[in-house]
This record gives sequence, structure tokens and C-alpha cells, in this order.
Amino acid sequence: MKTNLERIKRDIEYISKFNSTPGDGTTRFSYTEEDKKVRKYLTEEMKKLGLHTTVDPIGNIRGKMEGKNPLLPSIMAGSHIDTVEHGGNFDGVAGVISALEALRVMKENNFTPDHSVEIVVFVEEEGPNFNFPLGGSRIMTGAYSVEDLKNQINSDGVSMYEAAKKFGLNPDNMENYMVKKGDIKAMIELHIEQSVVLDELKIPVGIVKAAAGRKWIEIEILGDSNHAGATPMKFRRDAVVGASKIISKVDEITTEKAFESTVATVGKIDCFPNIPNVIPGRVVFVLEIRDTDKKGIEIVKKEVEKNVEVVCDKLNLEYKTKELSETEPVIFSNKVITILEQSAEDQNIKYKIMNSGALHDACLMSRVADVGMIFVPSIKGRSHCPEELTNYEDIKVGADVLLGALVELSTI
Amino acid sequence: MKTNLERIKRDIEYISKFNSTPGDGTTRFSYTEEDKKVRKYLTEEMKKLGLHTTVDPIGNIRGKMEGKNPLLPSIMAGSHIDTVEHGGNFDGVAGVISALEALRVMKENNFTPDHSVEIVVFVEEEGPNFNFPLGGSRIMTGAYSVEDLKNQINSDGVSMYEAAKKFGLNPDNMENYMVKKGDIKAMIELHIEQSVVLDELKIPVGIVKAAAGRKWIEIEILGDSNHAGATPMKFRRDAVVGASKIISKVDEITTEKAFESTVATVGKIDCFPNIPNVIPGRVVFVLEIRDTDKKGIEIVKKEVEKNVEVVCDKLNLEYKTKELSETEPVIFSNKVITILEQSAEDQNIKYKIMNSGALHDACLMSRVADVGMIFVPSIKGRSHCPEELTNYEDIKVGADVLLGALVELSTI
Repeated sequence: MKTNLERIKRDIEYISKFNSTPGDGTTRFSYTEEDKKVRKYLTEEMKKLGLHTTVDPIGNIRGKMEGKNPLLPSIMAGSHIDTVEHGGNFDGVAGVISALEALRVMKENNFTPDHSVEIVVFVEEEGPNFNFPLGGSRIMTGAYSVEDLKNQINSDGVSMYEAAKKFGLNPDNMENYMVKKGDIKAMIELHIEQSVVLDELKIPVGIVKAAAGRKWIEIEILGDSNHAGATPMKFRRDAVVGASKIISKVDEITTEKAFESTVATVGKIDCFPNIPNVIPGRVVFVLEIRDTDKKGIEIVKKEVEKNVEVVCDKLNLEYKTKELSETEPVIFSNKVITILEQSAEDQNIKYKIMNSGALHDACLMSRVADVGMIFVPSIKGRSHCPEELTNYEDIKVGADVLLGALVELSTI
Repeated sequence: MKTNLERIKRDIEYISKFNSTPGDGTTRFSYTEEDKKVRKYLTEEMKKLGLHTTVDPIGNIRGKMEGKNPLLPSIMAGSHIDTVEHGGNFDGVAGVISALEALRVMKENNFTPDHSVEIVVFVEEEGPNFNFPLGGSRIMTGAYSVEDLKNQINSDGVSMYEAAKKFGLNPDNMENYMVKKGDIKAMIELHIEQSVVLDELKIPVGIVKAAAGRKWIEIEILGDSNHAGATPMKFRRDAVVGASKIISKVDEITTEKAFESTVATVGKIDCFPNIPNVIPGRVVFVLEIRDTDKKGIEIVKKEVEKNVEVVCDKLNLEYKTKELSETEPVIFSNKVITILEQSAEDQNIKYKIMNSGALHDACLMSRVADVGMIFVPSIKGRSHCPEELTNYEDIKVGADVLLGALVELSTI
């Protein structure tokens, strides 16, 4: 059984039309008109395959191909259809369409699995709207409660809870739709890599072993704000001088002292008062560290904090550090990884075992099921931008690996 | 002749009451109710001394004590009464009140100068309101035209030109009130130092030799904005890494390669998109360099730009540099400096010959007259903030130096 390149291309291109910012990337927030139209298309396509479709009370869609033994736990595949603002056509959609195509091919080939096989379309994965990334899978797996949706407010002051209600859903009923351990045997998410590794290596498929954990540490450097013209160099306590000396060592610390899997980024810097002719008295920046190995995160944290102390001591500056958030690394199921490898090898598809630096809905699903992920290459690593691009041929190859694994997993 | 400490204290404390942000520093913008009340007080005090007062069409106040020979050019002293938002009580006001007090003492002592002696109160020196620092002296000396006032807009969308009109002035008449070469023989401005030098050395008076010139260079570092979790360290083009390595060397370059008079500051940094989990694709910062010696400015500029090239080359980043603005250093009059030194020495007042890192109205006046400046200590160098403080005793000592110099300059 092989997936069909033309259908994959047609589906992704069709879905891309439902976009609130045409000409400036793709924007499709959850619970909007664009979202509604894509949902309609997908449920119609699922119904054509005879799937039993359900929309849960917060908007996650599930489409079930009944297995020979309905008492066995389902095998699940899917991803999301929402995008960031001015994003691309592939993030999320590639995984939903690969799952749909895999089920189409099973149906065409009159393959009836032992376990039921489900497509899942998670709601609100990106999170820029309600500031609640992975919202759909977080609620579905019980990591957060429906109550939490009332605190996730968009820029119009509307909560995700209210928005779901306006969209015709009834979040209060979610209790009966939660996924618990034992409901799902295994889940696989195909997703674009959103980085350059597969594209650089010209390998069409990544099989993901683990997703990195993440720590955010806010570092505040305090000096004296003063007149930039009137204050001689030797009398200054310039917070930018301290912050720049600290930030400039983060990349070296990460590459030299931690692991190949460790990444560290200072993506947010705020300088006060941020006026060219005033010596900044305060700089606040966020150090983000990610690794699939918690030890890597701890090494960078410790070394950067040591450097904060040394630099501030030398420059007579003060500092405060605060841990803003932490997520644990997710190690995917060895069983599912082995099945994915076997599926690729059976089809002579070249693959790379790799890590995910980002979190995906699959990471939440690993709370309740055996989970694996397939990555397909992002051209030049671009994602969350209009330039986001993945070759349809690569998605097709990834979908073939997914299909093979779903067949294997759904057969006793 | 000696100035009177109590009167100086009383005047400054009285003026400080006219403040639109009581309890949170002093805020007194030009053309406001607070400004109007201080103007009223000052002109009344001038009239008590028999001064002939004029308000020019943009709001600069001049109060003239007629000399024995009205054909001789005037000697002038003064400063400004506007403040930054949440500023202090001394910046500007100290110089206006010192000049007023000097004329009071002359009058009390029945001293009639040969040259007329004038107090000047410049309008809109600080500039945060209309983004037009030194506005009053710039227009008075012809460095800018009244037309330029139409382009200086405050946050309510009102131009300085319109605001002056609403305040009852008629800027279009300014032509007849300009100060030209030959109108003023000499001008002296007493001002708080706004830095730590005098306070650290415990010297009550600075005699200013020169005011630093200034260059603003905008440096833009360009890399690739990418997912901070998904992009391995070796595949990154992180603009913050480049910018931090450049900024972290600015202080060393300045202290090791330029002069003691050179200062360099990075006070403004903007990072894009400024989100903790996105590798910044763009960082823009402004390098400000000041020195009384242009060579110092050029050394830092050249060395920093060389480092921009080296860093960006090594990290595969792109960059753009743009000179935003430049002002020339101002060298004050040797004649006036000598008279100020003599005045201090005659009164056994300890002084330090020093430079000004900031520009003042006096710098503009040097376009048309012989100019000198007196600095008095700023406690801990604080200025433009509620903590701004100068001991009244030090202002009195500075006013005595001013008085002595005005007497000398106004006598043939």
C-alpha cells in the first residue's frame, strides 16, 4: 500500500485557501470562519471513508475507522489545522492530511484493521490566539482542565472557553471526552521538522526519539541609569555592558560545555529606559535552554548563572534570576520507534533518528499512550512564516512510513 | 559682594511647587500652567530689581539691567525652567536662580555695570515634549528656524509652533528677536553637573572648558529568525549572539583605545521578534560616542565598526550601519574661562577645570558670543530623576563665582 502524492498535494493546497491573511502567509486561528470551513472539508472527507466522526466539546475532531475488534484500544494519527499569524501551509496540516491519506489507502485496499484506527485533528495547537499552545491536547489528556480555558484570553478579551461556546461547542461537557490510559494503544504524529537538519542532510524522514524539555530563566541586571554624555566610563554601572558580556558567552557555554542536543537562546531582551543617550539602569532578558537530556539544561543554567555572578561582581552590578517555566523532556515509545523504523526500512526509505526541539500534541499524548513522531524536511528550516515550505514528495514519503506503521500497529 | 544662600534655597523650593507630577519627581513642560506660574514669579522678581523684561515670540524670557553704556553689548547669564518628565528640582532652575540672585546682589550693592547685564530663561531646553531639545536657544541663535517648530510634534499631535500660539505667543515674529554676533559680549550658564565627578572629588565648582561632540550610529545585525527549540546551535544565524559580542566590547574599546574624555554607550537595543522561543533574526542598537576631542569619537567608531565586521563575518551574519546624527564639540571661550577661574580664586573657592558630556543652551550661545559654564555637584551624579539633588551650599558657591565673573565682564 502506498499513499498518493497528488491527493496529498490537492488537500493541502485546498486547505491553504482558508486563510484570513491572503498574500501575507497563512493565518487560521481556531474557532474562526476559516477554521470552520477546513473542519467541514475534513469531516466530509472522513465521512466519504465511512469514518465515525466526533467533535469533542472543545473542538478536537476524531474520525474512527472501526476495527475488527471494537473492544481493542484505537491506533491514532493526526496533528492540527490552526496556524500562527502569517504562518505557512504545512505546520500541522501535513500531519492531518497524511493521516487522512493513510486511511484512504487502507479503505481503497479493503484493509480492515484489528484495532480501530483514528484520525485526530487537535484544536488550538499554536496558541498565539489565546496564549495557550497545545491547548486541545492538553485538555484532551487531562494535563489542564476546562476551567483553565476561562483564563486563556485573546487580544479581544475573549476567553478560549467563551470562544468555544460561541463556536457552538459546550466545553463543560468535556469530562466525557477525555482520553485516558488504555483508550489509545498508540499515537503517531507526522509534522514538518521546523528546522534545517533533514534539509541539510537531504534525508526525507526523521523518526523522533525524544522531544526536548525546556527551561526559561529570566535574568535581570541592575545598574545605575545616568546621563550617557555626562558620566565618565569609570563611574558607570551600565546594565547593558553586563548583560552583553553575559549573553555573548551563552553560545560558547552551550556548544563547549553541554551536549550536541542542547540549545540555548536569548530571544527576548528589554533594556530600560531604552533611549540612546541614557545609560541603561536595567536590562531584563530571558534565557531559554532546551535538551532531551535534563543534564544539558542544568549544565548551561549553572554555567550561565556562574558567569552572571562573575560579570556582575566585576562590574559592580546587581542581578536577579527567576525561573519562569519548565517542561520535562518527553521520551517517545521504543516500541513505536521500532515499528516506524521497520516501516521505513520495508519501503527502502532513508530516515534519521533525531530529537524534536519543539513540543507537539504528540508529547501530550505520551501521557496516555505509546507515541511516535515522523518529521519531514522544512526547506531551509523555515517555519511559522510565509516562507514555510516542505516538498510534497517528502510529505508523501513520510505518509508512507506512517501508513506502514499504522497497518503494523493496528494488526494483532 | 556675596550671594545669599537662603534666598537661593527659597526661590528653588518655591519654583519646585509648580509641578504636574507631585510626589513623583518634578514635571514642568514648556507652555503649561506650571510653566506659566514660574514665568510669572520670575518676571515679578526681575521687575522688583528694575529689570526691563521681554518675552520673545517663542517664550524665551530676557530681563535686562541697564548698564552705564547702553550701546555696549550685554553680558548674559541664565539657563532654563522646563524639566523632563519625573525629573528633579535643580536641572536648569539652579542656573536661572543663580543669575537672578547675582543681579539682586549687584542691585543691593548699588553696583551699576558698564555693559548691561541680562538674565535669560530659555524655553524648552529638555525637549521630551516636542522632541526638540535646546529648542529655545536653537531658535534664538538661528541654528534652527521658526519653520522647524511646525515639525516638532508632541504626543497629542500638537506642534511646538501651535503650542506657542496657544500659550499666547506669536512665533512668526521671532525674526526681530534673534541674537546675532555682537549683540551679546559674553554668556555664562551655571548648571548642575549631572554626573559624579564633582561629588566624588568633593569640589563645589567645575569650570567647563568644552562640551563634548556626539555621534549616534545605528547598527543593525541580521540573521535568520527561527524556532529556538528546533534549530541546533551549529545551524543558527542568531542576531543576538552577534550583537552581544559587539556590544560587550564597546566599553573595553573606549577605555583602552580612546581617551579619558571619550564615552560610549549602547542605551537602546531592539530585538526582533523579541519572543523567548524565537531565535532573533534582527537586532538594532544605537551606539552613542561623545568626546570633546573628535579624534576620540573617530577611534571608537572605527574600532567598533571593525569589530562588527569581524563578528558578523565569523558568525555568518549580515549588518548595516547608519550614522543617525552628529554634533561637533564646543570649545568654550578662553577669556571667559580665565575670568571664571579668577573669580573663584579671588573668593578662595576650590574648582576643577572639566568638560561637559552633555549639551546645554550655553553651547548654542557660543555660536554668537563668548561663553563659559559653571558646574555645581550632583549628589551621586543623579539627574533627570526624582532623586536629583544638589546642595544649596554648592549652588550658592557657584553663584558667587558667577557673580564675580559677571561683575568683571560687565566692567570696562
